[in-house]
Amino acid sequence: MKLTETRIAIIGLGLMGASLARALRGHCAALFGVDSAPETVEKAAELGLVQAASVKMEEIVPQADLVIFAAPVRATLGLLGRLSEISNARAIVLDLCSTKAEIVAAMDKLPARFDPIGGHPMCGKETSGLENADPAIYREAPFAIVPLARSSPAALALTGELVQAIGARPLLLDAATHDAWTAATSHFPYLLAAALVMATPSDAAPLIGSGFRSTARVAGSSVPMMMDILTTNRANVLAAIQRLRESLDGLESGLRESESEQELAEALTRARERYQSLVGRRD
Amino acid sequence: MKLTETRIAIIGLGLMGASLARALRGHCAALFGVDSAPETVEKAAELGLVQAASVKMEEIVPQADLVIFAAPVRATLGLLGRLSEISNARAIVLDLCSTKAEIVAAMDKLPARFDPIGGHPMCGKETSGLENADPAIYREAPFAIVPLARSSPAALALTGELVQAIGARPLLLDAATHDAWTAATSHFPYLLAAALVMATPSDAAPLIGSGFRSTARVAGSSVPMMMDILTTNRANVLAAIQRLRESLDGLESGLRESESEQELAEALTRARERYQSLVGRRD
Repeated sequence: MKLTETRIAIIGLGLMGASLARALRGHCAALFGVDSAPETVEKAAELGLVQAASVKMEEIVPQADLVIFAAPVRATLGLLGRLSEISNARAIVLDLCSTKAEIVAAMDKLPARFDPIGGHPMCGKETSGLENADPAIYREAPFAIVPLARSSPAALALTGELVQAIGARPLLLDAATHDAWTAATSHFPYLLAAALVMATPSDAAPLIGSGFRSTARVAGSSVPMMMDILTTNRANVLAAIQRLRESLDGLESGLRESESEQELAEALTRARERYQSLVGRRD
Repeated sequence: MKLTETRIAIIGLGLMGASLARALRGHCAALFGVDSAPETVEKAAELGLVQAASVKMEEIVPQADLVIFAAPVRATLGLLGRLSEISNARAIVLDLCSTKAEIVAAMDKLPARFDPIGGHPMCGKETSGLENADPAIYREAPFAIVPLARSSPAALALTGELVQAIGARPLLLDAATHDAWTAATSHFPYLLAAALVMATPSDAAPLIGSGFRSTARVAGSSVPMMMDILTTNRANVLAAIQRLRESLDGLESGLRESESEQELAEALTRARERYQSLVGRRD
């Protein structure tokens, strides 16, 4: 099935889902939406974001060839568990969740009429909700595609076409690798920013400059969203904490003794080079 | 003495010094510059950044009523130690260094003809050097003023006038408080970003998004500059490392056990509120 012939239902019309709806406009045969908040459903219809919207999954999901979950991790896990009761129709099932191991395990339990595949666009915005929907958030963003052993070639091809259509950069990964890497690059850095903020005396606020603002920024993320992510990627985040402790210990011992100054300078130089090679890939 | 009647020598014509020269244009009676690099001296003269420039302190400093050190911390400490040999003239002496305890101690040893006062504008730029000079970096930046017991009311008044003239926000502090606060808000966050980068597997680079870029950004700072800062603010940075370890330990134990989920959510909510109150003051 080509994307232009596909009828798509987006479950969850927050920032990610509503932005996806806007990004997919003109690329598919039909767009439907589901959201648990009646006012969001109303606004989506009002704005013409989708052709039909409802708070009821069972009214929408059976009409779609592709069902996309754009809800928080634990809400998506709950909905996947109920999907077979909600719809008797065949469909490809894709999700946009930030952690993949538990999602893919839940997808694997779906009846054979569902053709599941994991997805994770690495993007976001300071603001949230349908009213801040912006199709540009997907442009140039890495989009992890995480196929299951049971994912059909059709599901993989359609997902690839969707990623291209919204301007994202596809990246094929298995769930374990995805979760280990995102723990390192996203989930743990959030926890670290929170720890930094808690370790900063309030009195020092007048001296905060652009460096601190940058380092601490992600500590302002939505706590319920991050709790879902952290608790479904616990082991990898704990491993990242351990690695941070070790690198911080090394820098601390270099700083403690004035004789180790040369070692500290070398370690900081390695860190600077690592920073440049890590972030330079997209610069 | 009013700023408009003051002849100013800026020692060090890198980003900070050259930007200051541009910001002070039209606000003082004369501007002179010193830099250890002959090509920088040449370029400063060529661009008309200052009326006279030299690699030799002794040619410039005796002509100035106000001598401003815009060199790295340890270079400034060395120059302060030689100042009495360099000039027999009276002058107010101000510095722009990122750490204050050692600078102020060195200033305290100057002969009585010098009237020293500490300063620290909290600003910077990704780029460095005279060619990137930008008077706007001082605008709205916090500018710590750190008087010594021996600083005259005239030195304090002139420094205050200078801070106003370049559009910065003056903040009167003692050296110990300044160094403790900047360790928390600037020097330690740099070290933490370096530790984060070292703890991030290179393989994970394709999944790096805007969050990681923001958190890790300061790890790209100049290592020699940061070495000067860290080694002249060692005890405060070590104390900040200890505080970070404690707050990270708390978050880790909340994450480790699924029964502590509520505690973890509460801790992250406190961190989010603290972040908003810390950075919100200037938003």
